[in-house]
Amino acid sequence: MIASGNEAARYEAQRLAFSPLLFQACRVLRDEGLLEQLVRARKRGLTVGEAVSGGGALEPYAASMLLEAGLAAGLCTFCDAPPEPRFFATPMGVYWLDDPLTRVNAEFAHHVCYLGATRLRESLLQGLPAGLASIDSTGAATVYQALRTLPVGVQRAWFDFDHHYSDGVFETALDEVFARPVAQLVDIGANTGRLARLCLERSDAKVLLVDLPQQLEVARDALASYGPRVAYHPSDLLQEGGLPGGADVYWMSQFLDCFGEDEIRSILQRVQQAMRPDSRVFILETFWNRQRYDAARLCVIGTSLYFACIANGRSRMYHSEVLKRLALEAGLTTVKEQEVGLAHSLLTLRRS
Amino acid sequence: MIASGNEAARYEAQRLAFSPLLFQACRVLRDEGLLEQLVRARKRGLTVGEAVSGGGALEPYAASMLLEAGLAAGLCTFCDAPPEPRFFATPMGVYWLDDPLTRVNAEFAHHVCYLGATRLRESLLQGLPAGLASIDSTGAATVYQALRTLPVGVQRAWFDFDHHYSDGVFETALDEVFARPVAQLVDIGANTGRLARLCLERSDAKVLLVDLPQQLEVARDALASYGPRVAYHPSDLLQEGGLPGGADVYWMSQFLDCFGEDEIRSILQRVQQAMRPDSRVFILETFWNRQRYDAARLCVIGTSLYFACIANGRSRMYHSEVLKRLALEAGLTTVKEQEVGLAHSLLTLRRS
Repeated sequence: MIASGNEAARYEAQRLAFSPLLFQACRVLRDEGLLEQLVRARKRGLTVGEAVSGGGALEPYAASMLLEAGLAAGLCTFCDAPPEPRFFATPMGVYWLDDPLTRVNAEFAHHVCYLGATRLRESLLQGLPAGLASIDSTGAATVYQALRTLPVGVQRAWFDFDHHYSDGVFETALDEVFARPVAQLVDIGANTGRLARLCLERSDAKVLLVDLPQQLEVARDALASYGPRVAYHPSDLLQEGGLPGGADVYWMSQFLDCFGEDEIRSILQRVQQAMRPDSRVFILETFWNRQRYDAARLCVIGTSLYFACIANGRSRMYHSEVLKRLALEAGLTTVKEQEVGLAHSLLTLRRS
Repeated sequence: MIASGNEAARYEAQRLAFSPLLFQACRVLRDEGLLEQLVRARKRGLTVGEAVSGGGALEPYAASMLLEAGLAAGLCTFCDAPPEPRFFATPMGVYWLDDPLTRVNAEFAHHVCYLGATRLRESLLQGLPAGLASIDSTGAATVYQALRTLPVGVQRAWFDFDHHYSDGVFETALDEVFARPVAQLVDIGANTGRLARLCLERSDAKVLLVDLPQQLEVARDALASYGPRVAYHPSDLLQEGGLPGGADVYWMSQFLDCFGEDEIRSILQRVQQAMRPDSRVFILETFWNRQRYDAARLCVIGTSLYFACIANGRSRMYHSEVLKRLALEAGLTTVKEQEVGLAHSLLTLRRS
């Protein structure tokens, strides 16, 4: 192994060049149980002979192919001692097998993005999600309109991805929101009502959910038991309708990243017009420039690429300064910025 | 940036998970001229604003997307100084732009393998190139039969790849072959006759080319000027036909890797039966276990994956010990092994 600067760079370039083959091979290595055998073998390692003797479906040709692919991709190393080489799982191999985030991302990349990614150039040049047609046969303009009719495997990968990224940070963010009294909160982009439920559980606040009519149907079922404390405002914010006035808090979680810059400015202007002078606005986002971990930044940027070629062709994970500038242009000043969880930032805004 | 063992492994796992999107984005980054701007900017770096001011086709949305993708994939780094982040090419970025091998591999992976790679699992379980149908509409059993009718872009990527890997090491290998007198050489798997031409140029030996009839037509045109010193033996070595007898040298360059183990044993048995007791047999191959450079090993293994899902479903780049064992089973003993060029090994064999 040579790891001088140039040789390492050359290796990385080749790894990217062959990455489609390596990606698919590493999924098969995992799905056929071979990676689990490898990880279980720990320091003892695994030969092709041992791998196929376990009674799985793989012939030696297939097993050797997959273990070597794992070697090339970095999931294992090898020791070339006679009679046959022995493979050993790396920490990356353990993540590829066991880490839920890695699996959710890989299956999302495969089922939702793999074919459509070939249309990325077109998507970027035209500002349209040219890759969406690879998973949608209805001619939908955005993935959101296509969601209900996507093939089952694609749909599952999409929701697994969507849920994984919005889980786990709400509680911490709500500590900040409810540090002051809140009589009414407007949840813009309420989706299936998960955040709304947390608010209803932890306080006596009334919650008003704003989202597309079909999204709110799901939330309506889920929150029926809270009776008059919950209200609904079906609205497509791409249309120029106003927002409900006078609430203490306007909340937007991973919502603005679904829009382009002009749309965000317009939405925030309507928030600014609807709010009281002392209302607070909260924006929870994953900003690509604010990531402490390279792994998290990669996920955020990867998600942007999905927005470009599959979702709607114009939205993205933003740079924090871009979002703050758009808010300022809409008459909102960022008064507080906090890191929440591993990858999120919570912005508190006031009328300028 | 945190680079403790676990964090590095987690990053690598995410990079693999998002690799299809990163791969396509990095191709666009290169093809739209943005990577060249970035590399030219050197230590000064490049902002999105500077990138789009050059008059290219890209809007800021597209340019920022691509530069961030380059960041996630490792082609650039960034410095987040106001008013906007500045991107800097890495050595890997320079390779992705300028290295012919990297480009040939990436375009091969895209045009020939990308779609078919999704059928790798099926290919390995069935021993058939299930991905071939993604580029071939004639129902061919192997890529070799489909070559002439592949779409132009696919065909070009295939030949660029094929030529790149067989160039450059013949001269060194032939020094070994012609270190002793050679009156007649049999070139098994002669392909388009490049090796044959080199032999004819550097010696007075007669050369007999063995390959499929259609392959030999190309060689016949190319070598017409050498008259009676050249002869042709059209043959499909998958059929059980014999080989021409009594030559001094039997030569096979990157030929046996196109076959499965049983086929290789059968071909070598026929060589063993055709040769004189003092004939020499030469095998030039890229063995995955013999690579000094991680980058070269990755290319060799990546090529194996292509063999599995596109080419014929049963061949591969071999481990050197496997090929030597098959030769031994066919009655041939390896008497010398040499490294040739950056990635090749030359085996000299004699009748056992």
